[in-house]
Amino acid sequence: MDEERLARLEARLLRLEDELAITRLVASYGPLVDAGEAEAVAGLWADDGAYDVDGWQMTSRADIRAMVESDGHQGLIAGGCSHFLGPAHVIVSGDEAVAVCESILVRHREGSYSVRRAGANHFTLRRQPDGWRIQHRTTRALDGSAEARALLVARAAR
Amino acid sequence: MDEERLARLEARLLRLEDELAITRLVASYGPLVDAGEAEAVAGLWADDGAYDVDGWQMTSRADIRAMVESDGHQGLIAGGCSHFLGPAHVIVSGDEAVAVCESILVRHREGSYSVRRAGANHFTLRRQPDGWRIQHRTTRALDGSAEARALLVARAAR
Amino acid sequence: MDEERLARLEARLLRLEDELAITRLVASYGPLVDAGEAEAVAGLWADDGAYDVDGWQMTSRADIRAMVESDGHQGLIAGGCSHFLGPAHVIVSGDEAVAVCESILVRHREGSYSVRRAGANHFTLRRQPDGWRIQHRTTRALDGSAEARALLVARAAR
Repeated sequence: MDEERLARLEARLLRLEDELAITRLVASYGPLVDAGEAEAVAGLWADDGAYDVDGWQMTSRADIRAMVESDGHQGLIAGGCSHFLGPAHVIVSGDEAVAVCESILVRHREGSYSVRRAGANHFTLRRQPDGWRIQHRTTRALDGSAEARALLVARAAR
Repeated sequence: MDEERLARLEARLLRLEDELAITRLVASYGPLVDAGEAEAVAGLWADDGAYDVDGWQMTSRADIRAMVESDGHQGLIAGGCSHFLGPAHVIVSGDEAVAVCESILVRHREGSYSVRRAGANHFTLRRQPDGWRIQHRTTRALDGSAEARALLVARAAR
Repeated sequence: MDEERLARLEARLLRLEDELAITRLVASYGPLVDAGEAEAVAGLWADDGAYDVDGWQMTSRADIRAMVESDGHQGLIAGGCSHFLGPAHVIVSGDEAVAVCESILVRHREGSYSVRRAGANHFTLRRQPDGWRIQHRTTRALDGSAEARALLVARAAR
């Protein structure tokens, strides 16, 4: 009976650890990408992880590293910007998880700041031997499209 | 003695589960309301839960569903918007809880985005047989009013 | 063996409690400072805690209380504003911790709202007998400076 109770405690604890690990991972994306930490950003994804942002398809860690190192992104952070992600709504199902959040992109230019975009973000994640990693992330501008809105609904991984 | 130790562990674990459940509930509101998921949004409230936003009084799940389905809200999401809530400051006291967060409303119009409003949000929540639900939410624009500012202080439920 | 298992459970639980306590502390800063709760804001810091914001050096709770009570800050909140902090990326190492997040400052003026600033925030925290407190917080505008970007990388306390 104590054995059962202990095992139940361990299972509940693991669920919390999983949820917090994924929350932490999503919370680290904005700061890391705005710091220009290409290697660390790429390491949030699985080796074969994908990132599809408004049709730009990245399908490996190397692709994600290249995005952070690109002239486009380096220009953004050299001018001053914040990829500001909101708190993630996380649903864990065993070794898979889904996380959803909204985001805004704030840019600095000549002493003033403005919101350049609001986005919908949908992540699927998988437990790896060394922790949770993003398997697929899709981001779309919240410009009224049905596609963007559909990304905001977190449903348990099948 | 092991019995006591186990019981203490279970109590600490339950407190964390409660806090995370409420954090998750609040984090899901923005994505769900911007997706237009009327049923899911209403389901965050208790049957007799209330939502008072700048004097608009909703006092049931049906009222909240109707707000999401209203022409006003449907127009907002068809044009593109983000009800962007910040991380909630949660205080759990047994079967009751208080959560507080700030929020901004970002709207898209003709390819550009702007912040239309910043708000103060105060939630009281209650444990139901099937999980935590909002009993009362009050939201006010952060326009300098003392009423809005008072909502930002999370005090333990009595 | 049960003894070992219990001790391991307790250690894992404590780590989660620590991470959540720090997340909660950071999430409470914006609401409390915008409510003008000088005493409560100061209480988030250690007695000898420091806050360095764009070169303004506060080095005690009294300094932080004075900042909240200053004409500058009181003018901000009387006009309407949100110190909107994103979810913190927290790394706990025993009795020390690091937390990193981005923030925006939204101001209200004559019925309209605008983002006046985006910031990088780096906190070091220490466990005190009565809970976690901020030892040092550094905040810099995300205007492209290398200094601001470096604050966004959370590295474990040594």
